[in-house]
Amino acid sequence: MKSSSLCPRFEKCAEVISKRWNVLIIHQLLGDSQRFCSIESAIPISGRLLSERLKELEQEGIVNREVYPQTPVRIEYSLTEKGRALEPIIREMEQWSQEWIEVEA
Amino acid sequence: MKSSSLCPRFEKCAEVISKRWNVLIIHQLLGDSQRFCSIESAIPISGRLLSERLKELEQEGIVNREVYPQTPVRIEYSLTEKGRALEPIIREMEQWSQEWIEVEA
Repeated sequence: MKSSSLCPRFEKCAEVISKRWNVLIIHQLLGDSQRFCSIESAIPISGRLLSERLKELEQEGIVNREVYPQTPVRIEYSLTEKGRALEPIIREMEQWSQEWIEVEA
Repeated sequence: MKSSSLCPRFEKCAEVISKRWNVLIIHQLLGDSQRFCSIESAIPISGRLLSERLKELEQEGIVNREVYPQTPVRIEYSLTEKGRALEPIIREMEQWSQEWIEVEA
């Protein structure tokens, strides 16, 4: 594969944003920290794939996973500062979609 | 697959943005209209896949394909008004990547 003239930082951002479901997961977590099941019910994604994506986003430093040691144990996902800084991208996407995407009535 | 509570417009935008290479192709075309070979040399993508993505983006009304009837025929790709309206998303991605992505020195 030939090398590209693109900025490696931008390429990495595109890689994170372009990974299927990441945008919808980040969009979902912009509201507040959430449990796995509430993210899963809001997005048409399988539990296995959601778990995989959350792990990757955690490794990227975009998502924080908080374990509350109670019975049964409670786990909540939230955006880190780095994750929250993605909000302007998501808001511009919302704006574009309102202006340019038609949906069947 | 269960239905989701997401805005269908936003989901469609996420689908376009999340399709691998679309962000890099759109980023490339924000400069000026370009020929296939110059897009291909700027992005680490195969010719076959680039051709597929350009066709999809054309069908989405995001890319315009202009054929100049000369010999040999010249084909140029450019962003439509709908495509150019994606610029704020790309610029926010550039900004985020400069602030939050570290690259090996």
